[in-house]
Amino acid sequence: MTNNKNTLTGYYKESDEDLWLWDDIPELDMEVGYKVEALLHYERSPFQEISIVDTQGFGRMLVLDGTPQVTTKDGFIYNEMITHIAMTTHREPKRVGMIGGGDCGPSREALKYESVEQIDVVEIDQQVIEVCRRWMTKDSGDEREACIRMIYRDGYKWIQEQKNNLDVLLIDRSDPYGPATSLYKQQFYQYVYDSLTEDGIVVFQSGSPFYNTSILKNTVRSLSKLFPIVHPYVCSIPTFPGGIWSFVVASKKWDPLQADLTRLPCKDTKYIDPETFLASFVLPKYIKNILK
Amino acid sequence: MTNNKNTLTGYYKESDEDLWLWDDIPELDMEVGYKVEALLHYERSPFQEISIVDTQGFGRMLVLDGTPQVTTKDGFIYNEMITHIAMTTHREPKRVGMIGGGDCGPSREALKYESVEQIDVVEIDQQVIEVCRRWMTKDSGDEREACIRMIYRDGYKWIQEQKNNLDVLLIDRSDPYGPATSLYKQQFYQYVYDSLTEDGIVVFQSGSPFYNTSILKNTVRSLSKLFPIVHPYVCSIPTFPGGIWSFVVASKKWDPLQADLTRLPCKDTKYIDPETFLASFVLPKYIKNILK
Repeated sequence: MTNNKNTLTGYYKESDEDLWLWDDIPELDMEVGYKVEALLHYERSPFQEISIVDTQGFGRMLVLDGTPQVTTKDGFIYNEMITHIAMTTHREPKRVGMIGGGDCGPSREALKYESVEQIDVVEIDQQVIEVCRRWMTKDSGDEREACIRMIYRDGYKWIQEQKNNLDVLLIDRSDPYGPATSLYKQQFYQYVYDSLTEDGIVVFQSGSPFYNTSILKNTVRSLSKLFPIVHPYVCSIPTFPGGIWSFVVASKKWDPLQADLTRLPCKDTKYIDPETFLASFVLPKYIKNILK
Repeated sequence: MTNNKNTLTGYYKESDEDLWLWDDIPELDMEVGYKVEALLHYERSPFQEISIVDTQGFGRMLVLDGTPQVTTKDGFIYNEMITHIAMTTHREPKRVGMIGGGDCGPSREALKYESVEQIDVVEIDQQVIEVCRRWMTKDSGDEREACIRMIYRDGYKWIQEQKNNLDVLLIDRSDPYGPATSLYKQQFYQYVYDSLTEDGIVVFQSGSPFYNTSILKNTVRSLSKLFPIVHPYVCSIPTFPGGIWSFVVASKKWDPLQADLTRLPCKDTKYIDPETFLASFVLPKYIKNILK
């Protein structure tokens, strides 16, 4: 496995030098390099190249096709921010769905709510789940993890079979290229709406509000056609290019800005608390202007 | 000037390939590369290598010793966030001092307050100012720019001569290595306190709260020994490694959390408005924990 490193997407090693992982951000004509302490795992699944590395700066990292996805040092920010806004806003989420989120981070966040009875994690690539279980996610020993059901399918097909049965849905879609393209169609937003119960809530990861503003704009526009309550929100994730990242929450009944913040499981969070929850809806002026 | 590119700190060009600028972030074992469209200017001042480049992703960029300092695409965030918190909080700032801030961005923000009579910008390297004037800062044609006085001196020496005469002081110090080291001494904080009027306010740039937490911690601790009101605050600056960045405001009388936000010159800002002003004081929980 430690041979042929130069042939893995994103990795580069010059003779006796250290191994580096290079993430290319074409929208910014920018590259970000991470010094790799150890390449722990590499495999090619039917969908993508999956690797796990240890880095000095960001700890252990899941990498797909050469792009860092989640790290042990800052992954808590993404996991908490995609999960708790909706889970706290809904008064009693029982059935939760997730499309993507293969590292299981968001599902563990969702389990912190006692009302939860079932979490369906829909991930097209079974190998991602298995690699994360082996290398990234320590066994929590929590009996409630039996609530988490893994479904190895295309999220676009799965969502069409869900009708009025999800209280909370989290959509951790990758960029709008390749297999994830369908998750950006207007029809997909309709399927999402139909999958939710009458007081259901959905959250979309919606890309960088700095260099990829069309994802955020289109997500807000598409959801606003269907849902009475739509709010973009942001947080800062150090391993994401540019740092600032956006999400959109859309809700049929409950407004996140009026959420009962005593529901937040603050004993077990590292990023979010009631103040941070509310501040995340305050968009810098240049982002407000994008959405005008 | 376009010869010998490979000898300039940070720049790299392989034979027929594009020129790239590489920023090394040793705390994260990380490198960030920017594709350079044009190297517009390069010189070696008595203090440092100064260059100006055009990039696709971030527009025009001032680079010192190979490290990007400010860009035309996101420089407004830094300039507004180091300036307006203090300028809005003080009810009538007349005399303003700045240590660093050679690109003149913060001084132009400060000029947006009518009460301002004089702004002293103290920059050790005259060449930085001249290069920025030539390449970065369009001539605003604003007559009030006559209020801005450039002082080419070591800020540590200059501050010792200021006694009870500054309403607002902004300290845009670089990292605690080399010539800026003295700006991190406890004695410096005392000089700063003494330079301010009885209702004076100071703001320090205090580094990354993600990977360089000791700067933030030490700044808060040092200022808390002297000032009755001390608040850290954060914002997201895409060209700064990790995105999230910290500042600390310390005030003798006025509390930024009770500022009269109608004073913010919102017609002329791109990042800050009353909501963003207040939200910047909400620290993610992991940063609150650093400061406990």
